[in-house]
Amino acid sequence: MYVRDTIAAISTAVGEGGIGIVRISGPASLPIAESIFKAKSNGGLKSHRFSYGAVVTPESGDLVDEAMVVYMKAPNSYTREDVVEIQCHGGTLVVSRILNLVISEGARLAEPGEFTKRAFLNGRIDLVQAEAVMDVISSRTDASLALAQHQREGLLSKRIATVKDGIVYALAYVEALIDFPEDDVDIAVETDVLGKVSPALAELDSLIEGFDEGRVLRDGVSVVIAGKPNVGKSSLLNTLLKEKRAIVTSVPGTTRDLIEEVVNINGLPVKLLDTAGIRESDDQVEQEGVRLSLDRIPRADLVLFVIDGSAPFDEDDATILRAIGAKSCIVVENKSDLPSVAVLPSDFSAPVVTISTHTGSGVPSLRDAITNAFMHGHAIDSREYVAVSKARHRDSLLKARTSLRSFVSNLEAGMNLEVLPVDLRDALDAVGEVTGETTADDILDRIFSSFCIGK
Amino acid sequence: MYVRDTIAAISTAVGEGGIGIVRISGPASLPIAESIFKAKSNGGLKSHRFSYGAVVTPESGDLVDEAMVVYMKAPNSYTREDVVEIQCHGGTLVVSRILNLVISEGARLAEPGEFTKRAFLNGRIDLVQAEAVMDVISSRTDASLALAQHQREGLLSKRIATVKDGIVYALAYVEALIDFPEDDVDIAVETDVLGKVSPALAELDSLIEGFDEGRVLRDGVSVVIAGKPNVGKSSLLNTLLKEKRAIVTSVPGTTRDLIEEVVNINGLPVKLLDTAGIRESDDQVEQEGVRLSLDRIPRADLVLFVIDGSAPFDEDDATILRAIGAKSCIVVENKSDLPSVAVLPSDFSAPVVTISTHTGSGVPSLRDAITNAFMHGHAIDSREYVAVSKARHRDSLLKARTSLRSFVSNLEAGMNLEVLPVDLRDALDAVGEVTGETTADDILDRIFSSFCIGK
Repeated sequence: MYVRDTIAAISTAVGEGGIGIVRISGPASLPIAESIFKAKSNGGLKSHRFSYGAVVTPESGDLVDEAMVVYMKAPNSYTREDVVEIQCHGGTLVVSRILNLVISEGARLAEPGEFTKRAFLNGRIDLVQAEAVMDVISSRTDASLALAQHQREGLLSKRIATVKDGIVYALAYVEALIDFPEDDVDIAVETDVLGKVSPALAELDSLIEGFDEGRVLRDGVSVVIAGKPNVGKSSLLNTLLKEKRAIVTSVPGTTRDLIEEVVNINGLPVKLLDTAGIRESDDQVEQEGVRLSLDRIPRADLVLFVIDGSAPFDEDDATILRAIGAKSCIVVENKSDLPSVAVLPSDFSAPVVTISTHTGSGVPSLRDAITNAFMHGHAIDSREYVAVSKARHRDSLLKARTSLRSFVSNLEAGMNLEVLPVDLRDALDAVGEVTGETTADDILDRIFSSFCIGK
Repeated sequence: MYVRDTIAAISTAVGEGGIGIVRISGPASLPIAESIFKAKSNGGLKSHRFSYGAVVTPESGDLVDEAMVVYMKAPNSYTREDVVEIQCHGGTLVVSRILNLVISEGARLAEPGEFTKRAFLNGRIDLVQAEAVMDVISSRTDASLALAQHQREGLLSKRIATVKDGIVYALAYVEALIDFPEDDVDIAVETDVLGKVSPALAELDSLIEGFDEGRVLRDGVSVVIAGKPNVGKSSLLNTLLKEKRAIVTSVPGTTRDLIEEVVNINGLPVKLLDTAGIRESDDQVEQEGVRLSLDRIPRADLVLFVIDGSAPFDEDDATILRAIGAKSCIVVENKSDLPSVAVLPSDFSAPVVTISTHTGSGVPSLRDAITNAFMHGHAIDSREYVAVSKARHRDSLLKARTSLRSFVSNLEAGMNLEVLPVDLRDALDAVGEVTGETTADDILDRIFSSFCIGK
């Protein structure tokens, strides 16, 4: 599957910038670079030396751009192959002209993520680490970035390795018993094997349990701000955004269009949706806004249900409450700077946070309530925090746990020795799907195709 | 004006990419980099060595990203100052976190173009070369890129230097005569001075004359495709674009919205405007399109007036012809695959190109006619081609020529020696404005503020 040809791509972001980079990886990297780069100083390209010179067309010697070029000799490179990076002026045309030269000298245009895929195929990183590279690039908060970096560094791989070690130990033990069937499985053997498998199962439980938190840290959460007109929804959005983006007026129903902003709340990437005031209206456009809002509530991960604490809880509020239903919700009782009047229905048990968007009081508590709704009070910025954050990983770990649990009950039920390795091998395969040892090629292709070009 | 502090900026384009670069320049570059970068190998950062390691927060040692770092010791750098480049993963957040670390360690956020400005202030390049850097980045055709690269390399500066040399020679000569007034200005002296000044004047003429071509190569030209409905305007646009972007149907007036595309015609960046069929219509939307088209004709640099060669030249065509008026125009007689019927008015003298968008015949001639309308047959992709391409340069060169001509007529009129240096100094100042020797600080600020950040 892995043809060791030479690939090339533009590795910097699309668009105009000060510096653009064309990256080449593979056996022909150095000769290709040498055919189009004339260094100012003598001696040619040496590994990890940054050389100044000119990129020229090989036939006519015409200048394409001045450039800094660095050659990284295998295996001391991102891909563990020979890599050359050409740094030129960051114009769209000039960068693509250099890429075209590199292609015409024999490189192939790299597929998205192909450099990282090679780093994985050449054993520099496992699949969990490779996938984390793209998370590092797309992280939007420090906490998501920290999670991605910990995965990229191998902290998650290390936890998965302890699971694998337990399974491998049990498998070796059971297979040895099959090969040398001196005794039946006695209590001592069973205890010994379980002693290795139980910590693996516990680690699997912990990894699977952590997925919800890992997922929200990686992908963020959708929070919808709902409430009848004029209770302060847009003011709340602005307070959370810490800047004036949405229109804030006291005219009911001014926030007609849905406003969507991603905001960092205690490290959690939160997509905030302001909605039009949810209540029946004769105004067609207003109704359209209401329809959109009601559409959004079911798709949100959490509803901030804003009420006016200085006014009685009325039928409009009750209508919205019904729309929220069993959805995860925080009641935001606004206008705490005014006398409190609103009385919530007694059969309603969501957490209530009293705030004033006017004075700002209560807003830090609201932020905490939002993150607690997802992170359950865990510190998400600690240096060791690592979690499973991808459904693919979680699914494979679930498969591994099912197989491992089946192994344990078969063992405890005193099943025939010959049967026991089947579950262990299934569990091992499932764990290997996460780290890339047993991942099918089409899954690998799908994973790396979601990468950006040049990574 | 030039405070030698340490500046930093993100030098890669905005957005997600495989690699992002934070660039630092100034005396504190190395200590700042050392405070946040932990190299994997020993020995620290050495000039022009590419080192692998980790960017960490200085206080807590928390990992921000893995990175490749290169230090370029002054004067062997872009700015001629100590420069450090930190290459990290190209995520928006991760790159800005590293920039923020660099800033918190004492660097100042660089203004747009400030690295290039320092390269200029430190004498590595002159102002013409510095300005060309941004042209290199924003070039959209090979010919504009070649012009920008020739300017950046100094080919234009060299031509301007010959002008300056002539003026300096004349000034030195005249000042020597003033200091040692042994003789009056005699014929021999006059001939000698004119012998130096005339080539300078000729070079000024040539530079000023070349501006129109340089400008169109740099900025491109606007070409509007005008014509009544159903003569093949959209087909022509598509033929020139070499791909199907505009809607092409045989229903008159389908191209209601203006379509704007930049296309490379023989190296010239051409902004092509397709227009709605220009004729009177009862349809309000169609009329709006017509109004926009008639608006555009005066603002275009050239009109491609498309007629149907297989039908009589009719009143609709004549209406458009009147709208074109004295504007630069090429008549495009389409449908040459059908029998020719159209007869152009005899008092009309624009070049006519016969084409068939159906068969493609005549299209290369049309391309040539378009570039000839601007470049007058000059080869614009030759290796030595260089021209003035900025109004600022042209204006200063015009001032220089006026002063130099005034000097020549004063000299020829036998004016008092004391008067002669004034014009020469004015001419010298004007030339110096181009190369940056006498450019006012506010002009410099304006020039570099149009650069991208990080360049």
